[in-house]
Amino acid sequence: MSLKIPIETSARHIHLSQQDFEILFGSGARPTFVKELSQPGQYACKERLTVAGPKGRFEKVIVLGPCRSCTQVELSVTDTRRLGIPSVIRQSGDLEGTPGCLLVGPKGKVQLEKGVIVAKRHIHMNPVDAMRAHVKDNDIVFVITTSYERSLIFSDVVVRVSPSFSLAMHVDTDEANAFANEDNPAGVILKLFNGHTYSLQTWADELQAGINR
Amino acid sequence: MSLKIPIETSARHIHLSQQDFEILFGSGARPTFVKELSQPGQYACKERLTVAGPKGRFEKVIVLGPCRSCTQVELSVTDTRRLGIPSVIRQSGDLEGTPGCLLVGPKGKVQLEKGVIVAKRHIHMNPVDAMRAHVKDNDIVFVITTSYERSLIFSDVVVRVSPSFSLAMHVDTDEANAFANEDNPAGVILKLFNGHTYSLQTWADELQAGINR
Repeated sequence: MSLKIPIETSARHIHLSQQDFEILFGSGARPTFVKELSQPGQYACKERLTVAGPKGRFEKVIVLGPCRSCTQVELSVTDTRRLGIPSVIRQSGDLEGTPGCLLVGPKGKVQLEKGVIVAKRHIHMNPVDAMRAHVKDNDIVFVITTSYERSLIFSDVVVRVSPSFSLAMHVDTDEANAFANEDNPAGVILKLFNGHTYSLQTWADELQAGINR
Repeated sequence: MSLKIPIETSARHIHLSQQDFEILFGSGARPTFVKELSQPGQYACKERLTVAGPKGRFEKVIVLGPCRSCTQVELSVTDTRRLGIPSVIRQSGDLEGTPGCLLVGPKGKVQLEKGVIVAKRHIHMNPVDAMRAHVKDNDIVFVITTSYERSLIFSDVVVRVSPSFSLAMHVDTDEANAFANEDNPAGVILKLFNGHTYSLQTWADELQAGINR
């Protein structure tokens, strides 16, 4: 239960389909590798795009590689509000019914019909980590963080298990700012009530009343 | 223990001393009342200011009234990063050693030497609420929230008790975005371990191992 999980902040970023990549950066263009990310095979690209919504735009938003089957834009709630786009919290790849936005690149534009999400917070881990933490793929857990002035406990955290994953929890910039502003933040899993807060108060009330189930 | 606390989001705002108010809005100027806030006697003003830091600025930031003894600017961590100002989490009024910023009004400018804070999350309540919740002034507690996709438990929440307070928890926009985006959010107090997360994991481990103290 004492598995210590590095917490990484995902700033706003874009995953592109090969088709959209070529519309935005030119026919035959391919992502330019700049830097590996924590998850094996994923990398930051040199390419940048403008992301625009009804109320605002962000310039120079980073593109991550490699290309995926569907284009996906990941923003924080603060970001979606600035753009005037609804905040829809989803796991990566679950894009049905999500809002769209306008992507502007050096060679063209793409008006997305869907694909803008606020990423649901999640933990990547491999099967060995999962055994150590007594969790399985798609479990929902709490994650306890500590910081000097604003520790918090994340609820509704999805566990994703795959041999290709490296141990890391991903939160967006709002979530990162809400709990800490420190170097090398980490969390530990609290596996109770399937990660839902609504049972926790009852449990605490019972404990304080001397009831131990 | 089941006191339900409305959670209110404090967007970026400014409290001014009377002296700074007159520098910014003109000699003899007084705050123009627009709307009452939840805390008795506090109100939103018509007046707006530009808040500037080394890396950026916000236009039309709201001034709250009445004037206070010291000028204080309250921002989220997202905001302080955009302005290029250090994020210092403090209770209202605790301004020693905090960073400054530039305030620009229609009649003048004020270069603050200190006064920019990220407000430490807190609950206002009156003494009757405090008795019902079994807490006292300056207690540190957890607050459990629920939302559809990203509930969380705030740690390090300060309780402030005064007969002049109305029951409300105040969080900044980052904190609000990190837990929910819903109408009428509310929380309940979990009073354990003096509000600190570091004891919680041990407690949970013991419970799951069958140890009940």
